[in-house]
Amino acid sequence: MLSFVVRNGQLGLTRKAIPKLRPGWALVRVRLAGICNTDVEILRGYHHFRGTPGHEFVGEVVDVRSYSREKRNWITKRVAGEINIGCRAQSFRPLCRFCRQGLVRHCIRRRVLGIVNQDGAFAEYLTLPLENLHAIPDSLADDQAVFVEPLAAACEITDQVSVREFKEAAVLGDGKLAQLIARVLRSELPRVVIYGKHERKLALARPAEIVTRRVRGDASDLKRVKETYRLLVEATGSPTGLALAQHMTEPRGTLVLKSTFHGAAPVETWPTVVKELTLVGSRCGPFEKAIALLQAGKVDPRPLITRSFSLGEAAAAVRFAQRRGVMKVLLRA
Amino acid sequence: MLSFVVRNGQLGLTRKAIPKLRPGWALVRVRLAGICNTDVEILRGYHHFRGTPGHEFVGEVVDVRSYSREKRNWITKRVAGEINIGCRAQSFRPLCRFCRQGLVRHCIRRRVLGIVNQDGAFAEYLTLPLENLHAIPDSLADDQAVFVEPLAAACEITDQVSVREFKEAAVLGDGKLAQLIARVLRSELPRVVIYGKHERKLALARPAEIVTRRVRGDASDLKRVKETYRLLVEATGSPTGLALAQHMTEPRGTLVLKSTFHGAAPVETWPTVVKELTLVGSRCGPFEKAIALLQAGKVDPRPLITRSFSLGEAAAAVRFAQRRGVMKVLLRA
Repeated sequence: MLSFVVRNGQLGLTRKAIPKLRPGWALVRVRLAGICNTDVEILRGYHHFRGTPGHEFVGEVVDVRSYSREKRNWITKRVAGEINIGCRAQSFRPLCRFCRQGLVRHCIRRRVLGIVNQDGAFAEYLTLPLENLHAIPDSLADDQAVFVEPLAAACEITDQVSVREFKEAAVLGDGKLAQLIARVLRSELPRVVIYGKHERKLALARPAEIVTRRVRGDASDLKRVKETYRLLVEATGSPTGLALAQHMTEPRGTLVLKSTFHGAAPVETWPTVVKELTLVGSRCGPFEKAIALLQAGKVDPRPLITRSFSLGEAAAAVRFAQRRGVMKVLLRA
Repeated sequence: MLSFVVRNGQLGLTRKAIPKLRPGWALVRVRLAGICNTDVEILRGYHHFRGTPGHEFVGEVVDVRSYSREKRNWITKRVAGEINIGCRAQSFRPLCRFCRQGLVRHCIRRRVLGIVNQDGAFAEYLTLPLENLHAIPDSLADDQAVFVEPLAAACEITDQVSVREFKEAAVLGDGKLAQLIARVLRSELPRVVIYGKHERKLALARPAEIVTRRVRGDASDLKRVKETYRLLVEATGSPTGLALAQHMTEPRGTLVLKSTFHGAAPVETWPTVVKELTLVGSRCGPFEKAIALLQAGKVDPRPLITRSFSLGEAAAAVRFAQRRGVMKVLLRA
């Protein structure tokens, strides 16, 4: 099969055998994959991943290794897939203490699709445990379903914080994840304000009834931005975002951290202590919520798609995804 | 009266008039004052404070500006004092939104004793609003009562986090505040482990039935320290503490931040995001709890006293307080 692997900071085309299945796992033919900033970070060395990246996808189950009729019924289904693979699916016994608590996303032995020890979606086929799969309703098109994974990550905030206790929220960052987060928060709150550097990206948020504010993305914002919020989400993807985020969060307020990036940033942490902020780290989230939001039409991520490429053009697609002003880039099988 | 002011990074002796009282304020003759790391930071420029530092004290009320007999009854009482002075005591109307919520410690116009726009305790007398005063029970000696302010800051953690939901806790840092925090947590939990660089400081914790562990306080700890905790308090007072604190906090765990220091530290924040940690900034706390802990004998801070100086020797005392291995230094009136 056609697949791409990390090679010297680039994606390299390679041909591999279709992967063998462990018991209870499914073979999924990828229909559409999304390029995420994490993929770009992986090319830069994040997690030292060697293999096939890609963790946002919608695909079709083409095989299941099981004699159970119920399990084999997954075949032909269109699916999105949770990316964290825990002890059970790897046949580790006893389960680690996180898997025992049902916190598979925090399994200490986890593989992560396209990120840690598990080949991902920039290929014709991928494999995942059946327990990771979520069926996609027929009413959702592929170019909506491909957003289930990042939208679930945005929904994680609503699992961690009682969002409706707040009157409004702010999101720092105007990138792909920030835009999804703003839309999820807007589905719960009457007012959401998104702060970003790029007028063209901010313009994408306004039709979703999100208030937009332009910032410069440097230290001058600390002097210029006067608004403060009781609930704020830092999703700039940049090491400098935390300083402004602390500045803009009210005393005793909640600051959700969504940015992962490779490298240390010089940060003064005393504002968090003096203002007694609560900082909540937030990563992967509930797929069910994401699918429900899409199905109900409460979030439409499609305006965030800049362009799609065929899978064979994946290397060019990832380079394109790093250009200024580009939002979601997709890979078609 | 004798007082000390910040002068070129040192304490300078000066003579001032005894301060005049606003309505509803008390004049307090300082009996004993404590030197805190924040005082040292202030001498280095933290908050650009110019005036008399010192915010830990026990004193005696010698005058009250009020015609109310009830208020004048404070005279001759021995007191500790909350350090944040809100809108009401400064005669600001309307109150700011934090004062309206009773969050005077977060008042946007607050003065802070010995830290922000309010002369502090390194002097013969200080003034505070009556609403800031807490009477000290006769059963407590001055050298216990002088710890009420920092002990209240340690107790703040128990107001912010449901400590008893945890089986154990760890404290990073073996300094004065860290030691008080470990003692407060130990009053609620069967097992508390304190991690520090200094064997002599750690030795002070063991009689309080706190488990001690030696660390180096540099990046090598990230490889050597394997234990993790669901509840951890970062109280090293050092910019490098956060990295180890994130490393030692379990996925979905709670990391309380107590360190304030001047300057930025290069920190990788992705562990907080990937492990979905909750970071809780924590500053000043409830005096009632601190007084109750002292009165019940649940916490005895006196073994932390290294030495006391007379007020006239304050400059030398602050220099002494910065020496390696020195814990609490007190100033006697």
